[in-house]
Amino acid sequence: MGYTDLDWLAINAIRLLAVDATFAANSGHPGAPMGMAPVAHVLFNRILKYNPKNSKWVNRDRFVLSNGHACMLQYALLHVAGYKISMDDIKAFRTVDSITPGHPEAHDTDGIEVTTGPLGQGFANAVGLAIANHHAAGVFNKPGFELFNNYTYCFLGDGCMMEGVASEAASLAGHLQLGSLIAIWDDNHISIDGDTNCAFTEDVALRFKAYGWHIEVVADGDNDLDGIEAAIKKCQAVHDKPSLIKLRTTIGFGSKLQGTGGVHGAPLKADDIKQVKEKFGFDSAKTFVVPQEVYDMYNKHGAEGAAQEQEWNQLLSKYSGSHKAEAEDLKVRLSGDLPEGWEKNLPTYSPSDPAVASRKLSEIVLQKIHQAIPSLVGGSADLTGSNLTRWKDAVDFQPPSLGLGDWTGRYIRYGVREHAMGAIMNGLAAYGTVIPYAGTFLNFVSYAAGAVRLSALSQVRVIWVATHDSIGLGEDGPTHQPIETLAHFRALPNCMVWRPADGNETSAAYYVALTSKHTPSIIALSRQNLPHLETSTIERASKGAYVVHEAEKADITLVSTGSEVGICIDAVKYLKEKHNLAARVVSVPCFEVFDAQPKEYRLSVLPDGIPSLSVEVMSTMGWERYTHEQFGLNRFGASGAYKDVYKKFEFTPEGISKRAVATVEFYKDVPNIRSPINRAFQQLI
Amino acid sequence: MGYTDLDWLAINAIRLLAVDATFAANSGHPGAPMGMAPVAHVLFNRILKYNPKNSKWVNRDRFVLSNGHACMLQYALLHVAGYKISMDDIKAFRTVDSITPGHPEAHDTDGIEVTTGPLGQGFANAVGLAIANHHAAGVFNKPGFELFNNYTYCFLGDGCMMEGVASEAASLAGHLQLGSLIAIWDDNHISIDGDTNCAFTEDVALRFKAYGWHIEVVADGDNDLDGIEAAIKKCQAVHDKPSLIKLRTTIGFGSKLQGTGGVHGAPLKADDIKQVKEKFGFDSAKTFVVPQEVYDMYNKHGAEGAAQEQEWNQLLSKYSGSHKAEAEDLKVRLSGDLPEGWEKNLPTYSPSDPAVASRKLSEIVLQKIHQAIPSLVGGSADLTGSNLTRWKDAVDFQPPSLGLGDWTGRYIRYGVREHAMGAIMNGLAAYGTVIPYAGTFLNFVSYAAGAVRLSALSQVRVIWVATHDSIGLGEDGPTHQPIETLAHFRALPNCMVWRPADGNETSAAYYVALTSKHTPSIIALSRQNLPHLETSTIERASKGAYVVHEAEKADITLVSTGSEVGICIDAVKYLKEKHNLAARVVSVPCFEVFDAQPKEYRLSVLPDGIPSLSVEVMSTMGWERYTHEQFGLNRFGASGAYKDVYKKFEFTPEGISKRAVATVEFYKDVPNIRSPINRAFQQLI
Repeated sequence: MGYTDLDWLAINAIRLLAVDATFAANSGHPGAPMGMAPVAHVLFNRILKYNPKNSKWVNRDRFVLSNGHACMLQYALLHVAGYKISMDDIKAFRTVDSITPGHPEAHDTDGIEVTTGPLGQGFANAVGLAIANHHAAGVFNKPGFELFNNYTYCFLGDGCMMEGVASEAASLAGHLQLGSLIAIWDDNHISIDGDTNCAFTEDVALRFKAYGWHIEVVADGDNDLDGIEAAIKKCQAVHDKPSLIKLRTTIGFGSKLQGTGGVHGAPLKADDIKQVKEKFGFDSAKTFVVPQEVYDMYNKHGAEGAAQEQEWNQLLSKYSGSHKAEAEDLKVRLSGDLPEGWEKNLPTYSPSDPAVASRKLSEIVLQKIHQAIPSLVGGSADLTGSNLTRWKDAVDFQPPSLGLGDWTGRYIRYGVREHAMGAIMNGLAAYGTVIPYAGTFLNFVSYAAGAVRLSALSQVRVIWVATHDSIGLGEDGPTHQPIETLAHFRALPNCMVWRPADGNETSAAYYVALTSKHTPSIIALSRQNLPHLETSTIERASKGAYVVHEAEKADITLVSTGSEVGICIDAVKYLKEKHNLAARVVSVPCFEVFDAQPKEYRLSVLPDGIPSLSVEVMSTMGWERYTHEQFGLNRFGASGAYKDVYKKFEFTPEGISKRAVATVEFYKDVPNIRSPINRAFQQLI
Repeated sequence: MGYTDLDWLAINAIRLLAVDATFAANSGHPGAPMGMAPVAHVLFNRILKYNPKNSKWVNRDRFVLSNGHACMLQYALLHVAGYKISMDDIKAFRTVDSITPGHPEAHDTDGIEVTTGPLGQGFANAVGLAIANHHAAGVFNKPGFELFNNYTYCFLGDGCMMEGVASEAASLAGHLQLGSLIAIWDDNHISIDGDTNCAFTEDVALRFKAYGWHIEVVADGDNDLDGIEAAIKKCQAVHDKPSLIKLRTTIGFGSKLQGTGGVHGAPLKADDIKQVKEKFGFDSAKTFVVPQEVYDMYNKHGAEGAAQEQEWNQLLSKYSGSHKAEAEDLKVRLSGDLPEGWEKNLPTYSPSDPAVASRKLSEIVLQKIHQAIPSLVGGSADLTGSNLTRWKDAVDFQPPSLGLGDWTGRYIRYGVREHAMGAIMNGLAAYGTVIPYAGTFLNFVSYAAGAVRLSALSQVRVIWVATHDSIGLGEDGPTHQPIETLAHFRALPNCMVWRPADGNETSAAYYVALTSKHTPSIIALSRQNLPHLETSTIERASKGAYVVHEAEKADITLVSTGSEVGICIDAVKYLKEKHNLAARVVSVPCFEVFDAQPKEYRLSVLPDGIPSLSVEVMSTMGWERYTHEQFGLNRFGASGAYKDVYKKFEFTPEGISKRAVATVEFYKDVPNIRSPINRAFQQLI
């Protein structure tokens, strides 16, 4: 309240930074920044709790720009507020190697919490951040020690509102009663195709009410700063529901094209810029102008945040005395490291142990490590009993009023919402106190492809427990049997795809996934039982690939993953007995990790001089990188008992041997067979 | 109304078929079939208009089982109703090569409209079927000739309700006022994780009201057959809104475990089966029993349907007299063929034509062919101006009351709903009178991965206009620049991924996509301008790959796609001038189509004796299948002007040449270089 001309000066300066930067870049989105500058100013100058000098303070309020194309708004705010974004950075908007790319990227730019732009993702990230906040409060807050009480604010546009991932996340947020989440919907009636009336006529506020949200409406988001502030404060006071503010704004406010699609995704024309600057009382001859008094008023708010952090640090200091174990736990979490010695809990196996499905082996890992890693927070997209993602006696993360769990709970019932689950995990990981994992069938990780991509791009530690990983799931049939899925995610940069073959490899997958702070992992796990290999160890499997079975003067190397490694071992005998051929067997639980090994090691696993054959019951795509010939499934699977399905497609010792014999024959006259590990040149990284 | 014991006999017989089949398969889902048998019986025996002897009659009512795991319900109904599903087929449930797989597959099984199981898809398919119905009625119905007046009924469960794809589709269906769509929600309160209370407490009916749906509630779906029928009839009478029936049922009705998760996804135990059969008055010693009077009552309804079809055929016959052009158009559409000579409208180009972005070339194709192919129905996920998917003067498909278009409109404003758009296109294609295409950025086709997968599996002709296909989109940056996307969809069986290099190749992509009746296509198109190649023709490009530039005694073959082909052409000169190397250039607009060519042709394009280098600005995964070395981008892109981004990553004549030189060097001592086209054995198809 008590807004003055100085506030409008700040608002217009922020608007004009977006105008100037998009004009200079000849690219970008001025419309949403100009329309949302008032609410952004109220939020960043009056409401949001942050210390611009330490953007990582864990109890800061989180801000997510789900309509990431409006990022010049965010860059302008961060700049004015004193984060590490200089005016030169603003001027470098959308140029190669700048920290101000076309959409906000969390790993590069100070003050950006999550990477947004693909619509709907940021909103679901915000739900994740709010879950993490409620969880941290549940775990760490004690009487007299409210260590965690931040809010999560999220801006979103009509595009985000239409995306299914946001609907899923909104439904779950309502169920979970996430009172610390406040979403502000830029209800500007414009999307790229024009007036939203052409495709989007639902009653959004009523829909969110149906999800269990609290609703506020601000009718004049262009002018009513008091109304904006009052609405946010009302939402802050609602503790048992997430809140949505329906904020009516004018896209491109000030432009000659305001209120139209013309101002959404293209810079303003020169003459339009001139009149906007004059209208706002700025010198139209100047660009990239922020008056000193605007910096000053933001510095004042930033200094308040710095003082709040200092107070908080003192509180934490006291807490360390009275709640030593919790404080120590928190410290470890915030470092991103894992508690010392946790890895001793990883189970190991020997060949005499009974055959077990790798989804079950995964369950055993979770059962054994969850006490050692208190930051581990699991869940499933309504497949708990199939994914085996819930350790015994786990407490569900639920609002206490439902009587089904509490805020300390470490198991999230995501519902059948794979895409939101992926995006929520990105938010959980970004918060800083939690390592998220969650389960679904491997085939349905594809539903979440948009979120997985952002896990990889934004470099967060997120783990997918992807069970039922092949035609080996059997009766559910082709609709549920992945063919293309591993190739898809193996082609995604900075994403580890694991397909362990036995118990030690499953432990290795978790070991590497949990210790890789900046890389997401997908662990593909079988429904069917798998025997334990003779030579597997956590250490060997942690190299991404290793020799499972060595042979003197081998005729061929069989290269495989997961459930097919054991069948390859059986094929070795078959090849010896029926064809007098000596075969080596290599297991490749993870391409990405193997690629990172020294070339010498890689060549020892896949050496020159021997032809190789890959064996994996799905698309052969990508295997040409490691092997000379490929046995796979470049078609859809079949519904039936898993052994019948494997037999149909000849994934048997006999079927493998047939192709191994053909491979040996095909290469018999080739001198100096070169391992595919050898390459003419290095790839750019 | 007037239901008798015979109806209950039928209902219980259907329930017990599901019980017996899941028990025999030792796998499957008896719960939903047992709970939904009453509504299914009312629908299939009283309401649904169909001729079981001709499951393709175009004005039949459509039935979609979105909760596809309940497929034994559908198989049982189709069997009892007289479709081509025998009792032996029922007994073969979930066995290899049966027509009764674990989830319903449209391409294999008589009477299955769309392939379902992955949750939410069927519901969105149903929206597509209803759109196609409204469109067909708009186009073909004339005074006195109501050729199209079918309804689309869809069963869906709580799982479907939670999926974002269903939310997107529901919002669009409400906007479009699809009065012929009636969805029946099996509100049984149980999903795999137990009571839906653990994750799904929203007010679904209120949410659908917010979307603009009509709502009916049936409180006792287990017993109240009159109430079910009355609710459906009320929905039928609502013509300006889609309808949702909230049907409260008991999952696994009759089982000792009824109303619990225990009956959802596993067969009943033997003793439970015994008591169920006794409770229902069946002989517990017998299995797979359908009393003759049940067949008889269904035959009666089927005969009514056959008579309705006969009447309809007579109507069509009259219509052919008075509306000759329309009748001819309809006949062609139903054949799946395209109107004769349509392909003469495809534009062709010569090298002297100005460079044009391939998204623009795509627009020109659509502009030129839309009159010749009246069944073509386009759209975009709110990127019309970027995808260039809308021909000039196109009419939007909209409910007339909005004043934005009408039911004859051939352009759908999908909103920012990529996943629903994909699934809706599957429904549109399945209806039989429409060939759907739609646009988004290539990167966001991934949002729809679940639907694209089902396009491929169910063998429907659906075309994605996927613009902004690489780092060449420039400033939007890594969040929008596909890296893994082409590899992902190239690994998907029965999916054509096109990346045309110029105008003739773009026409070829459309030619093959439109004439491939049983395969979906993704056409990846550039934002930046591309020159026209010297030797491209529609015919040559239609082979999937061809030699763009031949060279005597070539030192290397450069193999490329899309926007990089032109740069490879420039690299040829560079290699000659700076390194005295002769390079051939091959364009590969489509892997899948190239793979289908005779080996002799493939070897003429990629011959033995010459090393090859692929050049494509995204993941190299998959290229090892065609080339010896690969130049690509196995990392995320960058935000900046497209030429700067290409330069950063060295996709320039110089950068390509550097790698070509390394490749030639690497292969100089290899005798008899073998083309990767040569393989030791054939892949299973």
